[in-house]
Amino acid sequence: MTAKRGPLAGIRVLDCTGVIVGPTATLLLAEQGAEVIKVEPPEGDLMRRLGGKAPANAPGMSPKFMHFNRNKRSIVLDLKAPEGQEVIRRLAATSDVFVSNMRPRALASLGLTWAALSALNPRLVHCTIAGFASGGPYDGAPAYDTIIQGLSGVAACLETVIGEPRFAPFVLTDHIVGIIAAQAICAALVARAGTGEGQAVEVPMFENAAAFVLSEHLGQRTHDPEGSFGDPRIMTPDARPMKTRDGYICVSANTDAQARGFFAAIGRPELMQDPRFCSVAARLANVAAYFALRAEVMLERGTAEWVALLRRHDVPAMPYNTLASLLEDPQLRGSGVLTQEEGEEHMLGLRHANRFSGSGLPESRLAPRQGEHAEAILTELGYAPAERARLLGKEKVA
Amino acid sequence: MTAKRGPLAGIRVLDCTGVIVGPTATLLLAEQGAEVIKVEPPEGDLMRRLGGKAPANAPGMSPKFMHFNRNKRSIVLDLKAPEGQEVIRRLAATSDVFVSNMRPRALASLGLTWAALSALNPRLVHCTIAGFASGGPYDGAPAYDTIIQGLSGVAACLETVIGEPRFAPFVLTDHIVGIIAAQAICAALVARAGTGEGQAVEVPMFENAAAFVLSEHLGQRTHDPEGSFGDPRIMTPDARPMKTRDGYICVSANTDAQARGFFAAIGRPELMQDPRFCSVAARLANVAAYFALRAEVMLERGTAEWVALLRRHDVPAMPYNTLASLLEDPQLRGSGVLTQEEGEEHMLGLRHANRFSGSGLPESRLAPRQGEHAEAILTELGYAPAERARLLGKEKVA
Repeated sequence: MTAKRGPLAGIRVLDCTGVIVGPTATLLLAEQGAEVIKVEPPEGDLMRRLGGKAPANAPGMSPKFMHFNRNKRSIVLDLKAPEGQEVIRRLAATSDVFVSNMRPRALASLGLTWAALSALNPRLVHCTIAGFASGGPYDGAPAYDTIIQGLSGVAACLETVIGEPRFAPFVLTDHIVGIIAAQAICAALVARAGTGEGQAVEVPMFENAAAFVLSEHLGQRTHDPEGSFGDPRIMTPDARPMKTRDGYICVSANTDAQARGFFAAIGRPELMQDPRFCSVAARLANVAAYFALRAEVMLERGTAEWVALLRRHDVPAMPYNTLASLLEDPQLRGSGVLTQEEGEEHMLGLRHANRFSGSGLPESRLAPRQGEHAEAILTELGYAPAERARLLGKEKVA
Repeated sequence: MTAKRGPLAGIRVLDCTGVIVGPTATLLLAEQGAEVIKVEPPEGDLMRRLGGKAPANAPGMSPKFMHFNRNKRSIVLDLKAPEGQEVIRRLAATSDVFVSNMRPRALASLGLTWAALSALNPRLVHCTIAGFASGGPYDGAPAYDTIIQGLSGVAACLETVIGEPRFAPFVLTDHIVGIIAAQAICAALVARAGTGEGQAVEVPMFENAAAFVLSEHLGQRTHDPEGSFGDPRIMTPDARPMKTRDGYICVSANTDAQARGFFAAIGRPELMQDPRFCSVAARLANVAAYFALRAEVMLERGTAEWVALLRRHDVPAMPYNTLASLLEDPQLRGSGVLTQEEGEEHMLGLRHANRFSGSGLPESRLAPRQGEHAEAILTELGYAPAERARLLGKEKVA
């Protein structure tokens, strides 16, 4: 077994992405041991400034930038300049993966299409995270998370439960599609292990987001043109953490065994014979009544008491965490996923949550300063000292 | 180049998962060409009944089950019976990937741990989707999506914007962690291509969900123990589709170029000099005022007119879709991601959204009936006709 450097050790990723969707994809690859070279424009990744207030002594290192870019290396390139073009072509020739979330027109104007880069490196996996699948009527239109949330039905699902169109309070489609892109890239690397050939991978945000929404909520419309949308267990306003005497609790009791345990825990075992609640199908058909009953009874005791009681009946139950209480959660702290960074006073960092028994994970490194690894990367590409000095001296190039 | 069978053609996945998180992971693998053998208990995947009303002539084929299980094969096994145990061990010996979302105790009692299965097949990638990372205080506790949404801060983020703890109207953490598991599995397959060895991969739902939430919303708390949580651009109540004269519109204008375009489009170019709006940092610091200004001006015209006008200024803008209008969206229909299934009157199906230029994708098949492929799978495993008849005849086995 090789050293514990992560399952993607030895994979080099040329990362021409910014903001959230692309950096999410390359974060996963970097956390799993890939060498990710983040190419930033002269003004830096927008998220350096848009991701919250950076510490006074570290401009550009906003919290959100920090959390989406750890374990990466950074080089600044002006891809419109001939010098920047030459560097990126050398990088493409020596990389396993190229990822961008530029619009197709920009990609073509910079000579970074699959056609252009595969001519340099036929083993390259070339991933374009696009707003929309190519060839359709929105092809090339700009896409940002809120645009996609509104267009793909995410905001519509919120409207169903809260009465007005709203965005989910996350960069939800960026974040999800970024993970999808990392998966698609790895699938193409699996294919390459067999064929020896790279390929172009297109990951469209809108279509992936719409499939995410519709797979859950196409519902009865799947079979009936007049059927209702939505999973009623999820779309009911009662699908929420329930108030207890001293806080909130989350309970899940879908199977017959869980429902039986729940009715026993609340001292009403006879409800398992109630025709409204006696089977999965019955509880689904009477979901509003079932959830209302649950909400009412939870008010009778405190959260910790309920959790212990329900768990004794093997009913899944956990307290509700605020963001502040989440930081103190013993499971999260114990897992090492949330950590106090060494040598960075007060800096809370995040870590990859998955574990690989054979490959392990690489040591975690903080997100790079803008251009931090430019000299090292140019050296690795074979640029002589004088060339490096010239490139690094030109403000717009590296 | 091989035939267009998907990047994961040739990979066999032994899928001992149910409901959403595991089936999401194996759906991605199946859509990309892996052979996924779905092992169902005698009562079938719970989602067959919990996923909405099935057509009268196809019991167990609920809409949600259909959308999360296409392209898979199904065999029913009673894993507690010796016959079922023998079949699953033969399957494990001939598979590339094993995936389960059973709790650790159940996995051990069935002899399906990494230790047990790697002894049969050291090349196996053994993925356990767990509620919680092993070794922590919640290790082995039951986990369902709502439990994890409440515990990981998803519901807390909803509370911040709507005033009370609520679940996002999706099986959000199941769905996201399922995608994460598919990515982790493929990363381990990439590693195997180099080492020749399989490994155990642990994908914990809670820790992944908490990292998803905190990477976005740890915010100023990252550097300051008294700092505020949350990305203010997302946590503001004004982060929503905006009302127009005749509907709703989504607009994204974060960069300086986009803000300039937006102010020009609304006929107030001078706002680009307003100290509240003149830079990314200024608009972030005055996000409530910026969003309020946008919301007010959008009321002045209809959605289509605004979309055209904003797009002429290269400002990302799209109409808001309800779930009903999403089904008519020309981009979604044109992409083939939403399709009318042939031979299934009125059945709307979904398709994989990503495209692979070299590998292509396999033909899409509808989700399997319970046990549909049992005889074929047993035949492939070398069971003689009499043995198959015996296994298939026993109600609880296959």
